[in-house]
Amino acid sequence: MRVGIVGLGLIGGSLGLALRRLGGSLEVRGVAHHAEGVAAAQQRGAVDRASTDLRDLSDCDIVVVATPINQIQSVLEQIAADIPRQAIVTDVASVKRPVLAWARSLPDPSRFLGGHPVAGKERSGLSESDATLFRGETWVFTPDDGQELTPFDEWFRLVRAIGARPQILSADAHDRQMAFLSHLAFTLSLAYAQTVRPFADPRLGGPGYRGMVRLAEGDPTLYEDITATNRGPLVEAIDRFADVLHDYRERIDHGDRVGELFQQGARAAH
Amino acid sequence: MRVGIVGLGLIGGSLGLALRRLGGSLEVRGVAHHAEGVAAAQQRGAVDRASTDLRDLSDCDIVVVATPINQIQSVLEQIAADIPRQAIVTDVASVKRPVLAWARSLPDPSRFLGGHPVAGKERSGLSESDATLFRGETWVFTPDDGQELTPFDEWFRLVRAIGARPQILSADAHDRQMAFLSHLAFTLSLAYAQTVRPFADPRLGGPGYRGMVRLAEGDPTLYEDITATNRGPLVEAIDRFADVLHDYRERIDHGDRVGELFQQGARAAH
Repeated sequence: MRVGIVGLGLIGGSLGLALRRLGGSLEVRGVAHHAEGVAAAQQRGAVDRASTDLRDLSDCDIVVVATPINQIQSVLEQIAADIPRQAIVTDVASVKRPVLAWARSLPDPSRFLGGHPVAGKERSGLSESDATLFRGETWVFTPDDGQELTPFDEWFRLVRAIGARPQILSADAHDRQMAFLSHLAFTLSLAYAQTVRPFADPRLGGPGYRGMVRLAEGDPTLYEDITATNRGPLVEAIDRFADVLHDYRERIDHGDRVGELFQQGARAAH
Repeated sequence: MRVGIVGLGLIGGSLGLALRRLGGSLEVRGVAHHAEGVAAAQQRGAVDRASTDLRDLSDCDIVVVATPINQIQSVLEQIAADIPRQAIVTDVASVKRPVLAWARSLPDPSRFLGGHPVAGKERSGLSESDATLFRGETWVFTPDDGQELTPFDEWFRLVRAIGARPQILSADAHDRQMAFLSHLAFTLSLAYAQTVRPFADPRLGGPGYRGMVRLAEGDPTLYEDITATNRGPLVEAIDRFADVLHDYRERIDHGDRVGELFQQGARAAH
């Protein structure tokens, strides 16, 4: 069994580390954009072999696209040209509808399954990669309508073996839920950091402040790309949040049943 | 040197543990509301002695009021009646203007100094107390206009000895900054948890989601009391946030210079 990983950042690198820990006859190949990425992944032990040439994955059974979302379309075009059609192909992007649309131009779209490991860190990059990143986390798969999942059984087995819990969801439902669970979260963290800065000294911020700006310390370019591909659901999530916040604001301002509201918020968090 | 702590929850308990670690001739006395609180604090080693009677602190050099903010006024009234006027008195509440107002009715208000250790956890209570809670954190003191600080030198020395960094600020500036750094943070966390719940499965939320709802898992009654005492600055902070969020929403919706905005947010967080 050979698994090829395209893109050796936080997720790709962590996946390589986790899969290599499984041992056995599994071989992990990597493809990075630049020679430095190849060398770094080899040094970190995230791959058995790596190169900058996607054609070096042509004998892989499974190809995992783990690049930033704005590179996925061109990577899928290269895969269409260079990878034998019997390989199965999957990805790890946090928005699924556009990826599914791009994957329809593969020679055999039934060999592609969109995936999203719900795992991450506030900092990205190979240097943050961690073999235990997926442990206990959900790994969502978003099959196309009526898509047969049997070809992906071996991939599901590996995903479970590295500690994640596979879950099937439509791409639509996934993207709407992620707008709330992830994309709204980093938007609020960024907006919060920006709101606070002119009015308060962050050194006076305790653990509560630091927790709320942690996501804002992530890679803004990554966030921008995600936002661009999930704009509608994210704007809807922001609007829902703004309505709830307005209710909080009014009740706090009038001292009216604030406790009841806070109890509701606390229950929602548990 | 005897330090008396009134209220043995997360902050009072942590303070007792931290002070007792200093050793020497320091004695830590505690007062809890109920006999169970007294027993728990003794068992945890947070106090040398404890009781439910504030009069047992009458020979203390320093009395630290560490109750929830809505009990401070009545504790200060008891202190006025039962504690010799040469003792210095301080508190740890996260809103300072109302505490200063209540303290003006003490027999000698110049022996009171408002304090706020910017430290905490999402969960409250003695069982969460931790001798290292204050290490590396700021401990704000808010003297009244022209107040002489020399009587509090010994207390500043102890605060430094348990790892905190004392900082002087006016009560007004403190409360305005805390509205942004702390009270806005828990309000957003509560509103976020409440927004997400009807639309998404929290089990699909990764570390980003969990980080953003962490404050909402705290004690809503505590938050309600803080909110009630710092209403004006908090409502102003919510309004500023809502303006920034609206700008994010518009730019995301129109795909217009989102990257530039996210870069600003990320810079503000660092």
